[in-house]
Amino acid sequence: MVGTAEPVTAGILVIGDEILSGRTKDKNIGYIAEYLTGLGIELREVRVVSDVEEEIVAALNALRARFTYVFTTGGIGPTHDDITADAVAKAFGVGIDVDPRARAMLLEYIKPEDLNEARLRMARIPAGAELVANPVSKAPGFWIGNVIVMAGVPTIMQAMLDEVAPKLRTGVKVLSETVRADAREGDIGGPLRLIAQAHPDVTIGSYPFMGEDGRPNSNLVVRSRDAGKLAEAVAAVRAMVETVRRP
Amino acid sequence: MVGTAEPVTAGILVIGDEILSGRTKDKNIGYIAEYLTGLGIELREVRVVSDVEEEIVAALNALRARFTYVFTTGGIGPTHDDITADAVAKAFGVGIDVDPRARAMLLEYIKPEDLNEARLRMARIPAGAELVANPVSKAPGFWIGNVIVMAGVPTIMQAMLDEVAPKLRTGVKVLSETVRADAREGDIGGPLRLIAQAHPDVTIGSYPFMGEDGRPNSNLVVRSRDAGKLAEAVAAVRAMVETVRRP
Repeated sequence: MVGTAEPVTAGILVIGDEILSGRTKDKNIGYIAEYLTGLGIELREVRVVSDVEEEIVAALNALRARFTYVFTTGGIGPTHDDITADAVAKAFGVGIDVDPRARAMLLEYIKPEDLNEARLRMARIPAGAELVANPVSKAPGFWIGNVIVMAGVPTIMQAMLDEVAPKLRTGVKVLSETVRADAREGDIGGPLRLIAQAHPDVTIGSYPFMGEDGRPNSNLVVRSRDAGKLAEAVAAVRAMVETVRRP
Repeated sequence: MVGTAEPVTAGILVIGDEILSGRTKDKNIGYIAEYLTGLGIELREVRVVSDVEEEIVAALNALRARFTYVFTTGGIGPTHDDITADAVAKAFGVGIDVDPRARAMLLEYIKPEDLNEARLRMARIPAGAELVANPVSKAPGFWIGNVIVMAGVPTIMQAMLDEVAPKLRTGVKVLSETVRADAREGDIGGPLRLIAQAHPDVTIGSYPFMGEDGRPNSNLVVRSRDAGKLAEAVAAVRAMVETVRRP
């Protein structure tokens, strides 16, 4: 992992009808988002699409053209609705076939007599891709161009992310500090805007929540790649908050 | 609410840096997805974008051109990073100003002397939009064209969704039935594909999970708008599962 001054960016493509129907609640977006932030990689966009090849191809091509990396989740199992590998091959305009390395990985987990046509689908890998090991259940993900294709099952996806992380180019980590307002957003919105304008190299977000005292409150999150500029902006936010904070 | 034979479709646009940084874990996508499915509205795509006007405008225009409805969440509070209303006005090419109806709603909750410039931002509504009442904290959402703009705070978003639901055009509800395989996906993938091919008016998804007995398992979800065709496909799936089910 090498940190560079250039921002390193990413998109996530979640693939699966079960997420769009609401039957399965996605747990991968938040996990990957936090993971990438920790690596200094900026997640810029997420898309969720259905198990329809043309939708997957269009979304993948849109995202991979714009970001350093695209991480996909879902659709790499053995059943007929698992079409991610074929869609990725189509997006890249390359062939796809059973990969001997992937087949060998499956045979670490599956008896040769059980390696039927359905399971062999999990060894279909687009030409030119590197495999991403799956320490949980062996069927691998893969990495082609700037696209990393992972399982949808959270435990497997997380293990795959750990596999690829050491090979990712990473950026300068964004530092952040949170100041609890103990005030309502509407009372700090004016002065906070002035602070944001006076500190163009930091971003300041205001995230309202309902306090344990039953009163509206807000967390002010200050972010920057520059520790000195972060500290200056945080000091300004703290001073402002002192003037409006309620007893 | 009137059910029609034409499919009614939707997209969701989640707006907010805090989701992309992983600081806040989205709870709205799954909720809206399940809610729309219950209404017979098909959620086709979700996008998450940052608090950057051109990103919001581009994503909103892409989604609103393709789906019956687009639901947005986030970015309608009183602070400088709340730019959704302005971005929506820009996407539609209409003006935006303080709306007297929205101002009156704010005054049900806020004392006139507290209605400062920051809070008045929450009354800025694109020209031609209808307001969406906010029974929780009064600051309204709005509905313009086929786009429904809601708060990001889940309790408020949910209340707004209840407000708009009776006015939405809805489709024929998708019926679904789940058959638990008690088998590994790789053992049912082949026969399941044949069943899916023989029943083109249903969709069949296989969703693997780790069983309470520690063995890989899968839920087979059969979906259709036609009760008769659903029942036929479910019967075929049940019969198939009986032949491969493990003891």
